[in-house]
Amino acid sequence: MFPKNTWYVACTPDEIDGKPLGRKICGEKVAIFRGGPEGKVAAVEDFCPHRGAALSLGYVEHGNLVCGYHGLAMGCDGKPASMPMQRVGGFPCNKTYPVVERYGFIWIWPGDAALADDSLIPHLEWAVSPEWAYGGGLYHINCDYRLMIDNLMDLTHETYVHHGSIGQDEIDESPVNTKVDGDHVYTSRYMDNIIAPPFWAAALRANGLDDTVHVDRWQVSRFSPPSHVLIDVGVAHAGHGGIDAPKEHKAAAIVVDFMTPETETSHWYFWGMARNFKPEDKELTKSIREGQGHIFSQDLEVLEAQQRNVLDYPDRRLLMLNIDAGGVQSRRVLDRMIKEEQNNPATEPA
Amino acid sequence: MFPKNTWYVACTPDEIDGKPLGRKICGEKVAIFRGGPEGKVAAVEDFCPHRGAALSLGYVEHGNLVCGYHGLAMGCDGKPASMPMQRVGGFPCNKTYPVVERYGFIWIWPGDAALADDSLIPHLEWAVSPEWAYGGGLYHINCDYRLMIDNLMDLTHETYVHHGSIGQDEIDESPVNTKVDGDHVYTSRYMDNIIAPPFWAAALRANGLDDTVHVDRWQVSRFSPPSHVLIDVGVAHAGHGGIDAPKEHKAAAIVVDFMTPETETSHWYFWGMARNFKPEDKELTKSIREGQGHIFSQDLEVLEAQQRNVLDYPDRRLLMLNIDAGGVQSRRVLDRMIKEEQNNPATEPA
Amino acid sequence: MFPKNTWYVACTPDEIDGKPLGRKICGEKVAIFRGGPEGKVAAVEDFCPHRGAALSLGYVEHGNLVCGYHGLAMGCDGKPASMPMQRVGGFPCNKTYPVVERYGFIWIWPGDAALADDSLIPHLEWAVSPEWAYGGGLYHINCDYRLMIDNLMDLTHETYVHHGSIGQDEIDESPVNTKVDGDHVYTSRYMDNIIAPPFWAAALRANGLDDTVHVDRWQVSRFSPPSHVLIDVGVAHAGHGGIDAPKEHKAAAIVVDFMTPETETSHWYFWGMARNFKPEDKELTKSIREGQGHIFSQDLEVLEAQQRNVLDYPDRRLLMLNIDAGGVQSRRVLDRMIKEEQNNPATEPA
Repeated sequence: MFPKNTWYVACTPDEIDGKPLGRKICGEKVAIFRGGPEGKVAAVEDFCPHRGAALSLGYVEHGNLVCGYHGLAMGCDGKPASMPMQRVGGFPCNKTYPVVERYGFIWIWPGDAALADDSLIPHLEWAVSPEWAYGGGLYHINCDYRLMIDNLMDLTHETYVHHGSIGQDEIDESPVNTKVDGDHVYTSRYMDNIIAPPFWAAALRANGLDDTVHVDRWQVSRFSPPSHVLIDVGVAHAGHGGIDAPKEHKAAAIVVDFMTPETETSHWYFWGMARNFKPEDKELTKSIREGQGHIFSQDLEVLEAQQRNVLDYPDRRLLMLNIDAGGVQSRRVLDRMIKEEQNNPATEPA
Repeated sequence: MFPKNTWYVACTPDEIDGKPLGRKICGEKVAIFRGGPEGKVAAVEDFCPHRGAALSLGYVEHGNLVCGYHGLAMGCDGKPASMPMQRVGGFPCNKTYPVVERYGFIWIWPGDAALADDSLIPHLEWAVSPEWAYGGGLYHINCDYRLMIDNLMDLTHETYVHHGSIGQDEIDESPVNTKVDGDHVYTSRYMDNIIAPPFWAAALRANGLDDTVHVDRWQVSRFSPPSHVLIDVGVAHAGHGGIDAPKEHKAAAIVVDFMTPETETSHWYFWGMARNFKPEDKELTKSIREGQGHIFSQDLEVLEAQQRNVLDYPDRRLLMLNIDAGGVQSRRVLDRMIKEEQNNPATEPA
Repeated sequence: MFPKNTWYVACTPDEIDGKPLGRKICGEKVAIFRGGPEGKVAAVEDFCPHRGAALSLGYVEHGNLVCGYHGLAMGCDGKPASMPMQRVGGFPCNKTYPVVERYGFIWIWPGDAALADDSLIPHLEWAVSPEWAYGGGLYHINCDYRLMIDNLMDLTHETYVHHGSIGQDEIDESPVNTKVDGDHVYTSRYMDNIIAPPFWAAALRANGLDDTVHVDRWQVSRFSPPSHVLIDVGVAHAGHGGIDAPKEHKAAAIVVDFMTPETETSHWYFWGMARNFKPEDKELTKSIREGQGHIFSQDLEVLEAQQRNVLDYPDRRLLMLNIDAGGVQSRRVLDRMIKEEQNNPATEPA
């Protein structure tokens, strides 16, 4: 259950660097590549109209995606452009997918292309401002992308899953607040006057701040459809205003989470962290990325086992506690989008 | 096809040492752990009532099994005991499974808990007497547990599968005798005045006995429902009475086999050997365990290929020869138990 | 979709050297072994009539295939020959499969044994003449064997899949010609006055010929039912007659391809090369075999991805261009054979 008339992250630019990429997104097999005269990103069905080979196993030449089996050259527009010794005018065309390269990601619209509007891609200030640095990665996870939304909209799990890095008892001892604003859902938690957990103590030090004093810590998760969860996180020396403290008293960051459904029970998880302190420090970016990569890998086992349980116990209802409100409200937004799509089928056959 | 209102071996104590264990038993996903004030073994459905996480990925605290996702503490009685910042009174409960720790094993009753009676766990003298030593292990095998019962109730296969260790031509040259006594089935074979095969020659030497003279060898398999096969095995210097020979003339042991169904076509195989010579010799226990582990691993490939054949040739009937009588009679006992269960459904809904 | 009343390559002699082989062929699980008084090749269902064990896990003794579980000795005629302490007269028999050892291969007739006629095995001159040397190997490929026939009947793919070894641009710049002669299909391509690609330059050198001059190159693929594709390939110094040039001016070989269906979507691919220059040079045979093994492994990924696409896009038709005519015509021959079999069911129940 996922909306298709919306933008998802398909891949990162390094994944199509010098070669096409084959990836299943929302059930669609897609070949993504840099084509056309300027190397603009393009995406077509990963199926050669000649004999059904996977176009993504081929290569790009003269702006077309050349099939690695018999040389059919597929244009970015889904029309076969040429094939040695053949006239391709009557060849069947491939479905194409709107794709946009922006903010360090390749975005894809897997549904009705006629509805794609790139102004709907959310603005990501941290991706364009020199005041920010970003590092991230990708995991393939065998669970419904909505289980990951639940996970990120309820950070209580940090106490348990991420003990020793970002988890601490104060998290689940602090009340959580969820609010809905149109299609956006916010879940926030504030922990004042506590000891910074190891990850944040290191961030304070990296930012040239004392890590031995008490801090005010905050976590504000924001869900935006279809599957983006951006989390304002950080610590400030206690009593300076917490999330609103001046820059010199805090270490703040945005946890970035873009989940892209692969199938009903698997997804691509693009994770990362943007920070607005010491953005020029590439070693710091690398070490934060490694730390986060390790921490986020701890969720995999938990979520994949949860997915198996959900399938194995189809009759058991899950609870919806106050801490789950973020995930519950996010799913309502999604349900509404999916229903709308079903009521307004594609303007042309897919 | 397996009875559920009966005791199976769920695991060994070392498997729940300091951490819970998740295991599928008779189609039920179970989390087994040491809980309560005294660390008594407990077993509950491996499903957190909160969001369906696998409880077995959590940890034990204050006698409860704490979910490693959001901290729900599950009591040994299947009732959620607590959860940070939550009132758990109205939470749904988990199914629990009667479990008993005895004889160096954790026993589980996967069926109707109201019928569980721990006096039905068979007495294992070798597990409690200081005159005996035991060593064993666990294999996961992708075949119906009844194929393993067949295997153990017809030791003819030793000649072929275990050539060079416990197999020898005299086995299938000796007549086999099967008798049924209530729910127990016995298959026995006596081989008099033969050369001891390598495994038993080593046992004689370990017991301080001459291994170059002829011996009388015996194998008496006993099936007890639901899936226990204990085999009296050994050799005595020829002419001293064989199985009844005085201790100083023989090396005797019990092969221990507890099969626990996982699914219809897979099971957990707890194997081991109890011996009543040199019980204090831990090195001997270890070396016998290693030898047996190697020998018993030879059955895996054969049984898993047999299982695939049974599934691939659904219309072919298997033969029931005299050597198969042990397995055939054991299956009759099981069929009777299963039929009885179907005629007397659980006293309360599972 | 494969004919069964025909000869396929089952295995090579080294695969049954001293031990039986279990292999699924055209959906049939077969145990192949050397039995009888003279060690002649035999094939029976890979199922022990006693308890369903896989006979191929056993061993050969006194000309019979002895089951490695309980010692049933299966004769080459599918009749249980003996079993320790048992009378096997009334035991059910196994299906047998006609098998013939010829030309360095074991051939099997998986269909109606009554129709098997070993004069239908094609004559392979290169396998019997001292003027030729042969080296080859076996790959298991997860695709319909007909996708491999397509592959071999249209060598255009060499330009793309085998770039840097046997591929070169001139291949798909040269016209291809397909003709049908009864059940045989021929596709030929001639490239005159070109530079030899690396594989053939090495062959020229190995044959003591100058590899720096222009050559005439040829490729003549011949499909013979059910799934044999033999390809005349080679290069001759330009202007000496190409394929018809005298021996001292050319390096010529036959690419040998025998595809044996395992299931509808997988097959055993026996590949190799026969050459009629320097047949006594075993080092050359070895190095050609290694080079060919590497080149042919490049097809695997392409074909397996194509198979997945064909399954994932059941409604998309594949194109049938002139270059595909060889495969298309070969499939017509196969369709005719399969239809004939359906109209003339087996003379006796299988």
